[in-house]
Amino acid sequence: MLDFSSDYARGCHPEILAALGRTNDQSFPGYGSDELCEQATELIRAACACPDAMVIFLEGGTQTNQIASKMLLKPWQGVISPETGHVATHEAGAIEHAGHKVIAVGAHEGKMSVQAVRACLEAHASDENREHMVEPGMVYLTHPTEYGTLYTLDELQAFADLCHQFSIALYMDGARLGYGLVTPGTDVTLPDIARLCDCFSIGGTKLGALFGEALVFPRMTPDHALSQVKQSGALLAKGWLLGLQFTTLFYGSAEGRFHESLYLQGARHAIRCAGKLRTGLAAKGYAFAVDSPTNQLFVTVPNGELERLSAFVRYGFWERVDAEHTTIRFATSWYTAEEDVDALLEAL
Amino acid sequence: MLDFSSDYARGCHPEILAALGRTNDQSFPGYGSDELCEQATELIRAACACPDAMVIFLEGGTQTNQIASKMLLKPWQGVISPETGHVATHEAGAIEHAGHKVIAVGAHEGKMSVQAVRACLEAHASDENREHMVEPGMVYLTHPTEYGTLYTLDELQAFADLCHQFSIALYMDGARLGYGLVTPGTDVTLPDIARLCDCFSIGGTKLGALFGEALVFPRMTPDHALSQVKQSGALLAKGWLLGLQFTTLFYGSAEGRFHESLYLQGARHAIRCAGKLRTGLAAKGYAFAVDSPTNQLFVTVPNGELERLSAFVRYGFWERVDAEHTTIRFATSWYTAEEDVDALLEAL
Amino acid sequence: MLDFSSDYARGCHPEILAALGRTNDQSFPGYGSDELCEQATELIRAACACPDAMVIFLEGGTQTNQIASKMLLKPWQGVISPETGHVATHEAGAIEHAGHKVIAVGAHEGKMSVQAVRACLEAHASDENREHMVEPGMVYLTHPTEYGTLYTLDELQAFADLCHQFSIALYMDGARLGYGLVTPGTDVTLPDIARLCDCFSIGGTKLGALFGEALVFPRMTPDHALSQVKQSGALLAKGWLLGLQFTTLFYGSAEGRFHESLYLQGARHAIRCAGKLRTGLAAKGYAFAVDSPTNQLFVTVPNGELERLSAFVRYGFWERVDAEHTTIRFATSWYTAEEDVDALLEAL
Amino acid sequence: MLDFSSDYARGCHPEILAALGRTNDQSFPGYGSDELCEQATELIRAACACPDAMVIFLEGGTQTNQIASKMLLKPWQGVISPETGHVATHEAGAIEHAGHKVIAVGAHEGKMSVQAVRACLEAHASDENREHMVEPGMVYLTHPTEYGTLYTLDELQAFADLCHQFSIALYMDGARLGYGLVTPGTDVTLPDIARLCDCFSIGGTKLGALFGEALVFPRMTPDHALSQVKQSGALLAKGWLLGLQFTTLFYGSAEGRFHESLYLQGARHAIRCAGKLRTGLAAKGYAFAVDSPTNQLFVTVPNGELERLSAFVRYGFWERVDAEHTTIRFATSWYTAEEDVDALLEAL
Repeated sequence: MLDFSSDYARGCHPEILAALGRTNDQSFPGYGSDELCEQATELIRAACACPDAMVIFLEGGTQTNQIASKMLLKPWQGVISPETGHVATHEAGAIEHAGHKVIAVGAHEGKMSVQAVRACLEAHASDENREHMVEPGMVYLTHPTEYGTLYTLDELQAFADLCHQFSIALYMDGARLGYGLVTPGTDVTLPDIARLCDCFSIGGTKLGALFGEALVFPRMTPDHALSQVKQSGALLAKGWLLGLQFTTLFYGSAEGRFHESLYLQGARHAIRCAGKLRTGLAAKGYAFAVDSPTNQLFVTVPNGELERLSAFVRYGFWERVDAEHTTIRFATSWYTAEEDVDALLEAL
Repeated sequence: MLDFSSDYARGCHPEILAALGRTNDQSFPGYGSDELCEQATELIRAACACPDAMVIFLEGGTQTNQIASKMLLKPWQGVISPETGHVATHEAGAIEHAGHKVIAVGAHEGKMSVQAVRACLEAHASDENREHMVEPGMVYLTHPTEYGTLYTLDELQAFADLCHQFSIALYMDGARLGYGLVTPGTDVTLPDIARLCDCFSIGGTKLGALFGEALVFPRMTPDHALSQVKQSGALLAKGWLLGLQFTTLFYGSAEGRFHESLYLQGARHAIRCAGKLRTGLAAKGYAFAVDSPTNQLFVTVPNGELERLSAFVRYGFWERVDAEHTTIRFATSWYTAEEDVDALLEAL
Repeated sequence: MLDFSSDYARGCHPEILAALGRTNDQSFPGYGSDELCEQATELIRAACACPDAMVIFLEGGTQTNQIASKMLLKPWQGVISPETGHVATHEAGAIEHAGHKVIAVGAHEGKMSVQAVRACLEAHASDENREHMVEPGMVYLTHPTEYGTLYTLDELQAFADLCHQFSIALYMDGARLGYGLVTPGTDVTLPDIARLCDCFSIGGTKLGALFGEALVFPRMTPDHALSQVKQSGALLAKGWLLGLQFTTLFYGSAEGRFHESLYLQGARHAIRCAGKLRTGLAAKGYAFAVDSPTNQLFVTVPNGELERLSAFVRYGFWERVDAEHTTIRFATSWYTAEEDVDALLEAL
Repeated sequence: MLDFSSDYARGCHPEILAALGRTNDQSFPGYGSDELCEQATELIRAACACPDAMVIFLEGGTQTNQIASKMLLKPWQGVISPETGHVATHEAGAIEHAGHKVIAVGAHEGKMSVQAVRACLEAHASDENREHMVEPGMVYLTHPTEYGTLYTLDELQAFADLCHQFSIALYMDGARLGYGLVTPGTDVTLPDIARLCDCFSIGGTKLGALFGEALVFPRMTPDHALSQVKQSGALLAKGWLLGLQFTTLFYGSAEGRFHESLYLQGARHAIRCAGKLRTGLAAKGYAFAVDSPTNQLFVTVPNGELERLSAFVRYGFWERVDAEHTTIRFATSWYTAEEDVDALLEAL
């Protein structure tokens, strides 16, 4: 059975397993106060060109978004998100559970426009009843988005300018960040993100780690971060496991070779596989529901074809289009075998 | 200066003041365990034709909606509300502050359609990722709505059937309930509401009380209600003040004369005044932004006229329509002087 | 039936009723943006000798403590309270409901010692695991305490110095503040409190108002206060009712005659009645459980006497002392009739 | 450098690493819906003799306690804990952050007495003001406690009877459960715990897993568990990693050989090492601060000796006893090398 269901269906880069093996009989101090977390922090700082960044290592994506919201928002504030953003849809209300409103803004292919966010902020600022309303306190973007699309550098710059103008935070959910960084045509680099965002995450779970996300604060550093993480139940006792994974994934960054890091190598592999798959699907006449340049491809197929497909490939169910058509997702990843792409195209 | 700015700009029915005077040197036990609260409960039960209803007396509308949500929702649930509903807009995020998502559904003139809510519920129920999403746990309606419109009995019946089908609660925010009950043409009575809703509020603040809302649970009764109210900071020490006000407003209900109660008398007065004002405004060619049959009238005027109006009348600013027009609100109330209506129409 | 059960068993000072009558056909803007709230603020500022204080008017005591905690504490902080403090015992967990731990410190007759609080703060500061613990973020005192006792100026100064040293807030719950200000022998004035505390409340409910507490921030002012109050469901639509009551109670303060204000007159009356009652009880050989100088007297009686007492007086049940004795409370108040004190002493 | 600082300073049992290697190129469905989690659930059910138990796999101990509290408590309830319990001290207020009070009860060597808890429950039940107080909704025990001590079967039975009588939940925090199960002299088995507790955790982090705790509900099953876990940010994308670890640790349980499982083998090894160390320390005249039979030993040493010790062994700082003495902790674990015990004793 071929598997293109997601980019988190397998364990980890073999090098991470090897590192776990190498360190398994070493002792480390707990709760992230170890040298591996320190090294990983330095590597991430180097890759971001942010020598003073605070880096908090966490276990999962929803947890990361929830803790970032807790740290960035005041109690009376909410987060502006695309209506299709992860925090607005698939986090079971984690943001509201933490007391904050998700202010949904219309989106196209996963992206909000700067204009729509500006309109939202201006409407709030000019509303005579604004003290009775939730104040937007941060803008949430995913990059790549849930639909595989990417923001341009101009767009990110415009979001940053807008947030700066309104004195609110710009946060990027980078659960799949690596894939976005190596997509042909993107003009957005990690230092750009670190320069433009007030906080962002670097996803490990979907890019070769067993688990783990790095939450980066390039400039401002939240107060009592460890206590806040602990209070949220998110402080890993064996924190060095997170440090170890990011050290492995970002190896080389300190010497200016982030480009050659395992993190980006894996991402590039996925993007190559996606490219091959995209070309093949197009050649076969499949209709793409979204023009996604990254590792997630969305094609709309007649419902009748779903069963046939299920016989040889696992794919993601995305959404019903109409009574007769369904959009499904094929995801490639750092672990996709190229021959599986060939096999899938052949079988289709 | 004429005042049509709102229906909560004045104190209370003189009879409430009189009752305060009569009881001012009487002693009462605290926290609502007094005979006035008991009497008020009986009067409300009679008016609702719900002999077993639990009635909780609270101080304000946002507080009432927040506590109702806490009592009706499980931690993982959210509330479906019209996108223009009070909980979705003007409660400063009180619902999210209590941990729950407001699931906004499109609305027209303040009303959601049963179809739209059904679509929302069915979409959730059939979504393969629904465990990762906020489960709708209650439907929130205002009656009259923020735009002065009313649901029909058929609509309420359909909402009740829908909620019953999905095993979720139907809640009605009745901050202006009295005005809705006496509007000519409505076919919705208080016993209907008590029969169809799982919980609803009867607003006092906007209908002749100094302050006070009655939260009614016609059938199910929330556990540890007093502790929950206390924990929310909403338990009034001198709870009898709430009992006293609702006893005065609902006087006569126990004898089947709710129709003659001060509560409905005041409401009818407001509706009469609104009718006169509506007719007068229409005759003068004013354009109504919403077809509201209750005590709030929304007219769209050229911006140039705003200043002229402000010279002799206080009105509510509602929303900018376009660069040149603004919608404003004239609200009548239990205390509106009929001669003020005449004066306003003359001045216009 | 004589009533010494509490100091919140009756309505309000007749002058407040009169003021309600006088203003009942006046219109006011909502949510506290009215001139009566403005006047009340000025009067409180004058009485506190704090011309720049922010004053927030709220409805009840638990609500006030809860909102003060929300405004003064960071998410990872807790409040140090005497183990018998109201927030630690009788608020149904309102502080924890808002996410904060109550750090209980041993108390004697309702009071914590400065030494005990210092020990608590130093223990936290020197604990190697303090990042895994709740950081004390504020000290909570009641004055008078739940046991009717008072802090001295030296004690308050020492608490203020301690809090300053540890950069945390000193908060005083003044639900019965007036009674404490006029107790013979106290050396604590309202300006002292305003000078030494970072935040404190001035209780109206137990001192002649129908309801209402003033939350005072003498120097620092919380951000987005109105939104925070609204979000907590505590923003009264007819906010001027609170302004009206405090304007009446603090009348004269602006001219330097706070001493003659209705607020302190009522308090002095209660203290006089309590003095007479205390002397009479002592003469009759009653044993005082607490040496309370204010308006609450705690006497321990054999259980057998409880029934006899209940025949002619309402008192507060305080606590079982042992199998055969119970401590009960007699509270005087601004509304206590002196002849009732005589009658009680006679009947005993 | 010898390391007796804790039982979570190393990675994992080599067999877990091996299992990670074996499965690293297999695909699994996400979020715990995989066959490894299913197998681990079956193994735990077998070891607990609870064929219908619900098992929720989580990442860390504080997270587990926090989620258990959310699932077991009503909003108005609190948790009774020993004053030295983990939830009362070292979770940075995670329980309060979730809205619940920790009701601290006096403890001796980490244990509460049944009498003390009964007194707390009876005091609440008989308090006339109990509706204004936090209702105890669950009893929290650690086993072994933070001081290495164990409850007896009689004690657990008495706690269970007490909780049953008051209709509240009994919860056991088993972060170090394995060590307690194999301690010579204990009469408490895992099926006993499952029979007597309403919920308990089986710690993996301190017993050979990289990370992971199993939260077990032997009889009642919480509603919408996955959504609640997701909402708390605790749902691991690659949930099978938790299933894999517990499958490895509990291997053999399904065939009735839990006794031979890796989980208990590792625990027995630690207990043997602790026994040897205890005997050795006693022989050298070290004073034990606590009479702990499990894998944590607490000895009180003159401050002057601390530096000498630090030269060759990492130990846990426990608490200052007086100006001249400090209690320190030596912890053995599944990974302790017996020769390190010898080396430590020799060096002392």
